[in-house]
Amino acid sequence: MSFLDRIRSCNRWEPSDFVPFRLNGECVGHVRRSFAGHLERWPDIFGVTADEVTWVYPLEGFEERSRAMQEVLEGLVKSGLIGHLHGEQYPVTCGNRDQAHMLIDRACAPHFGVRAFGQHLNGFVRDGERLKMWIGRRSADRRVYPLHLDNLVAGGLPWGLSLRENLRKECREEADIPQDLADLARPVSAVTYCRDSTRGLKPDVIYCYDLELSSDFEPHCTDGEVESFHLWPVERVMETVQESDEFKLNCNLVIIDFLARHGYIAQDSPDYLQILQGLRSPLP
Amino acid sequence: MSFLDRIRSCNRWEPSDFVPFRLNGECVGHVRRSFAGHLERWPDIFGVTADEVTWVYPLEGFEERSRAMQEVLEGLVKSGLIGHLHGEQYPVTCGNRDQAHMLIDRACAPHFGVRAFGQHLNGFVRDGERLKMWIGRRSADRRVYPLHLDNLVAGGLPWGLSLRENLRKECREEADIPQDLADLARPVSAVTYCRDSTRGLKPDVIYCYDLELSSDFEPHCTDGEVESFHLWPVERVMETVQESDEFKLNCNLVIIDFLARHGYIAQDSPDYLQILQGLRSPLP
Repeated sequence: MSFLDRIRSCNRWEPSDFVPFRLNGECVGHVRRSFAGHLERWPDIFGVTADEVTWVYPLEGFEERSRAMQEVLEGLVKSGLIGHLHGEQYPVTCGNRDQAHMLIDRACAPHFGVRAFGQHLNGFVRDGERLKMWIGRRSADRRVYPLHLDNLVAGGLPWGLSLRENLRKECREEADIPQDLADLARPVSAVTYCRDSTRGLKPDVIYCYDLELSSDFEPHCTDGEVESFHLWPVERVMETVQESDEFKLNCNLVIIDFLARHGYIAQDSPDYLQILQGLRSPLP
Repeated sequence: MSFLDRIRSCNRWEPSDFVPFRLNGECVGHVRRSFAGHLERWPDIFGVTADEVTWVYPLEGFEERSRAMQEVLEGLVKSGLIGHLHGEQYPVTCGNRDQAHMLIDRACAPHFGVRAFGQHLNGFVRDGERLKMWIGRRSADRRVYPLHLDNLVAGGLPWGLSLRENLRKECREEADIPQDLADLARPVSAVTYCRDSTRGLKPDVIYCYDLELSSDFEPHCTDGEVESFHLWPVERVMETVQESDEFKLNCNLVIIDFLARHGYIAQDSPDYLQILQGLRSPLP
């Protein structure tokens, strides 16, 4: 599968399957048409029509809204329409995190098509002129993508933690990278994509980092999320992205972005511009 | 001026001022409404209506089309509607260079709103953890942007030369960089933008390169296009982009892309995603 096909796999959704989720006239998400009707149970919180779901809850505060949303989510879990809550909060925003209107449980962000933010770190080692990358294999008991390949460190960005703080936390938990080393990670890019998942719409922003590691560094998983780590020549990583479905879907984009920035994608490839633009797809 | 404002300056054009320039149904460029009428002089080459300019020349070959276009351009220069020809040929394409339908003189690409391709090289030096960048000051006699600041190496990509060959040539001519050093330049990105210039529409693609140089390297201009070179701390380059109009317009984008890739633009800046997406604006 070409790099461009990988990017397309992360950008598959049919707008007519969803209606906008609006708050104060702003579109803050998208709800699947077939799901929108379930929100009619809360007429003081949602206005539901054939064309949109509107947040009509009269209390304006961030806390009040977040509480009302949490009440709805717990009701949806109780009636079996949502499988579980994650316990981690995400901001509801159509811009950056600091423009949030309220919070929503991470597991439910797709049901409301709310923008989600994550952080992925490319850990790499120089071997003369060549590069190697640390790749993790996800544990067998992970809820999503068990046993798939992953970036060295990757995680969602919960509310209440800065980018720096969360990266330190993920580095420690996922790969036993100490804080002074984590602080050397360079913020080098972001990839954006939007896809239809079982749970709903996922318009995601992944902040990307490069961390150059010495050849004697070895990662260890401390939170059980990763089964094993492997140091692969970048060419093997590239082939695995192209020729298998081994990587967790969105990790492909983070790696393609890494490959482009490090000179591994030929500029005269016919897809070059579409690849670069596709890594930063506009979010709905 | 913020980075985002710089990007917007390179993406200013009013679609209603232009009509599509079509060939075999494909839109290969855009012609300013006020200029389109001049093409009626060649009714066997152009079909001109209020809504579009169509290439109607009956001979299908690449050479035949290129010859007909050249005849038109010479006619336009003779009647003073176009100032000069450059003598270097650009491909007429709405995709990549290898999908070209014919050639057009470089100086006239904007009159037909044809996609143009260039190459810019960031020459940088590591000073411990900090970076310095080589910056050129354009000669006083340059036709465009005299005495403005420029990337270490920057040039248009003429027809008939590969990316690698042209980069070697520009490196040699503009900065006296020998071929073995030029070949270490890494293809790391591309920026795209589209703006209304005096001559017409410029939907441009700039392929970007990073070349790490040792502290004892010193560039010399061999073709007279650059007056002087300066090695600046990256922070000074960044300030100059933000606070002055010293850089040639499109060099700002190449530098902003460099800054992002090297970790100099904060990911929690409110503009971060718009900056990244703006560097790869869709071309018409």
